[in-house]
Amino acid sequence: MAIITLLTDFGLRDHYVAAMKGVIAGIAPAAQLIDVSHGVEPYQIRQAAYLLSQTWSWFPAGTVHVAVVDPGVGSERRAIAAESRGHRFVLPDNGLVSLAGVEHPVVREIRNQTLMRHPVRQTFHGRDVFAPVAAHLAAGVAFEDLGPIVEDWVRLPLAGPQVLHIDRFGNVITSLRAAAPLQIRGTTIQAHVPNYSAAPAGQLFLITGSGGYVEISQREASAAARLGCKVGDPITLSDLTPGEKS
Amino acid sequence: MAIITLLTDFGLRDHYVAAMKGVIAGIAPAAQLIDVSHGVEPYQIRQAAYLLSQTWSWFPAGTVHVAVVDPGVGSERRAIAAESRGHRFVLPDNGLVSLAGVEHPVVREIRNQTLMRHPVRQTFHGRDVFAPVAAHLAAGVAFEDLGPIVEDWVRLPLAGPQVLHIDRFGNVITSLRAAAPLQIRGTTIQAHVPNYSAAPAGQLFLITGSGGYVEISQREASAAARLGCKVGDPITLSDLTPGEKS
Amino acid sequence: MAIITLLTDFGLRDHYVAAMKGVIAGIAPAAQLIDVSHGVEPYQIRQAAYLLSQTWSWFPAGTVHVAVVDPGVGSERRAIAAESRGHRFVLPDNGLVSLAGVEHPVVREIRNQTLMRHPVRQTFHGRDVFAPVAAHLAAGVAFEDLGPIVEDWVRLPLAGPQVLHIDRFGNVITSLRAAAPLQIRGTTIQAHVPNYSAAPAGQLFLITGSGGYVEISQREASAAARLGCKVGDPITLSDLTPGEKS
Repeated sequence: MAIITLLTDFGLRDHYVAAMKGVIAGIAPAAQLIDVSHGVEPYQIRQAAYLLSQTWSWFPAGTVHVAVVDPGVGSERRAIAAESRGHRFVLPDNGLVSLAGVEHPVVREIRNQTLMRHPVRQTFHGRDVFAPVAAHLAAGVAFEDLGPIVEDWVRLPLAGPQVLHIDRFGNVITSLRAAAPLQIRGTTIQAHVPNYSAAPAGQLFLITGSGGYVEISQREASAAARLGCKVGDPITLSDLTPGEKS
Repeated sequence: MAIITLLTDFGLRDHYVAAMKGVIAGIAPAAQLIDVSHGVEPYQIRQAAYLLSQTWSWFPAGTVHVAVVDPGVGSERRAIAAESRGHRFVLPDNGLVSLAGVEHPVVREIRNQTLMRHPVRQTFHGRDVFAPVAAHLAAGVAFEDLGPIVEDWVRLPLAGPQVLHIDRFGNVITSLRAAAPLQIRGTTIQAHVPNYSAAPAGQLFLITGSGGYVEISQREASAAARLGCKVGDPITLSDLTPGEKS
Repeated sequence: MAIITLLTDFGLRDHYVAAMKGVIAGIAPAAQLIDVSHGVEPYQIRQAAYLLSQTWSWFPAGTVHVAVVDPGVGSERRAIAAESRGHRFVLPDNGLVSLAGVEHPVVREIRNQTLMRHPVRQTFHGRDVFAPVAAHLAAGVAFEDLGPIVEDWVRLPLAGPQVLHIDRFGNVITSLRAAAPLQIRGTTIQAHVPNYSAAPAGQLFLITGSGGYVEISQREASAAARLGCKVGDPITLSDLTPGEKS
C-alpha cells in the first residue's frame, strides 16, 4: 500500500491535519501517513516548495505527496495532481510543482467530483478535496481518472540569490548551488568548510548542506539570529580577493 | 485493525506521548496511531472538546479516540469510556464527552484492572490507564469488559457566545452557528463572506468555517492579534441595521 | 515488522525528520515509525538521554530506537549501535547510551558501508547513516553485520543533583530518586505530595514523577517559571528539620 506524505501550513496545534488524516483513513486504511512539515509559514509557497524539494525524492516510487499551502482556497484557482518518476503530487495550482524539483510532470486538473468529500467546504479543500483524492490514488484509482491534462499549470519564476529557508539551528539556506564569497545584510562571508566540526567557534562560514544548497552557518549557534535575516532576504555575490577578512 | 487517535495537552517536546504509544504498540502492534493534537493549552477541557468535535467523526467507525486533558489525574475523578455510532472514546470523566458532539453515548467506568499497566502511577494515567485500555479495545477486547455502565458521567454546560479556539492563522472560532453582526472586545463585525479570497484585504469579516461555526477572520492576517482576544472571551450579538460600518 | 522510534533535535518545522522517514520507508516499508521527540534543545545530549530513558523500555522488544543529537556530525566521532534486552539503538557515539538506562549493552561500530545511503553527506548522517541502518535492522539485517564490537564507547559521567528536564507544564524534573527537602536557586522546597490534586494551590511541592524521579511542581502553574530555573541548574539537598516552612 502506498505512502502518503503531508505538507501544510496548518501547524500541529489545530485539528486540520487530523481531519485530513481521518478522511484518508476512511478511504485508504492501509496507507502509511508521514508528515513532511506542518510548520510552513502561513501562505509561504516558496518555503513549502523548498521543503517538498528536499523530501519527496527520498521516498520510494509510488508515494503520494499532498501539499496544501493554499492562500487561494475557495477562489477560482485549480486543484491539480502531477505525476513524475512514479511519484504523485496532489496540491493547489499555485506554483508549488514548478519550484519543488519535479521534472517533466504530467499535470491533471482534479475535476472528478466522485473523489471528493461532499459538501466541499470553501475554506478547507485540504480535507474535502486534496486528502480524499490522495487517498483514492493510494488505494488504486488511476491517475487518468482525476481529470483532464492541463498544460498551463502555474510556474513560479526562480528568483535571484536569496534566503530560501532558515532551519531550527539557525542555518541560513540560500538558493546558491556553489559556494562563493557572498554578502548578506552588509556582512561578507567567504570561509567555506566541509563540516560543522571543522569550523572555528564564533565565526560565520559557508557549508554545502545536505540538499546541495550553500548554507550560512555558525558552529552551535544561530547564523540567522546573528545576521538578523529572514526568508526572502536577497544575497549579493561578492568578489573579494582571497585573504580578506571573512 | 482499528485506528487509535490521540489528543492531549502534553505537547510534543516531552516524552509523554511517546510513552503512551510504546504501551499501545506492545498491546496492539497493528493499530494505526494518529495524532489529533497535543497542543491543547494545559488543562483546557473546552478547547480539547472543540478539537475532538472537529475530528472524531471524520474517522471511520471502529476508531478508538484517546483524549487526555486531565487536571484531576490521581484524584477521585473516574476514568471512563464512551461508545457512540461505532466510535469508542477513552478519557477522564471531566466533561470532554458532553462537549465533543458525541450523541447518546453509552458510558462505562473503567474498572478492569487487568487492562491497565501496573503499578499505575498517580501522575500519568495517560500511559498506565488510558493508553493500554484503548489498545486493548483496538485489539478486540469487548467494550462491556471495561466496567459497569454509569449514567452520572460529567456534563459541562454550554456557555454563552464566546471564543472557542484561535487557530494558527489567527482565525477566531466562535461558538455561534449562524452569522450575524456581533461585537467582541468593543469591535463590531458584520461583513460576511463565502470564502477568504472574496474578502477585501485589511478588513475583519465573518465566515462560516469548515466545522460549521462562525469565525472572525482577516485575509492573510491574524484577526485574533488585531482584536487582542483569547479563548473564552465573550461575544455579544449586535443589532446593527444593515448598512452600518462593519 | 519492527517499530522504529525517532528522537532528534531537528524540530518538526524543517524537512530533516521527513527525509529520514523517506529513506526508512524505502528500505523497510512495513516498519511502524513513532516519534519520541524532535524538540530536544539543539546539541543537548543529556536532555536527549533523559527522554530516551523515559520511553524506550515502554516499547516491545525488537524495537529499533534511532537517536540523533549529534553536534559532532562529520567529525571523527563514531556511529554505533547498541543491543540490550532485545532493543536496538542506532546513534552517534557521544554518551547517549550511557545515560539512557541501557543496561549492559553490546555495542558495535557501524562500519558496513552497504547499509548506508551514498554519497554520505557530512552534515546529515541522520538521513544517510542512522536512518538506513535502523531500517535495515528493522527489515531483518543481523546486528552482527553492522561492524565490529567496540568496548571503549563513550560514557558520560553522572553529574551531581541537577535539573534534568523541564516539561511543558513547567514541572522541574530533577536527577534525584528519593524525595527530600532541597534547595534550588535559593528556594527551599520540602512539601511532598502523592498526586497533583492533593497539593494546595499556589505552593511549590515535590512529587515523584512517572519516571521515578523527584519533580518540583506547582498545581496548574509552572514551577520552572516561578523558580526561574533551566536544564542543568544545580540542586542542593537541604537538612531542614521537619516543620520548617516549605
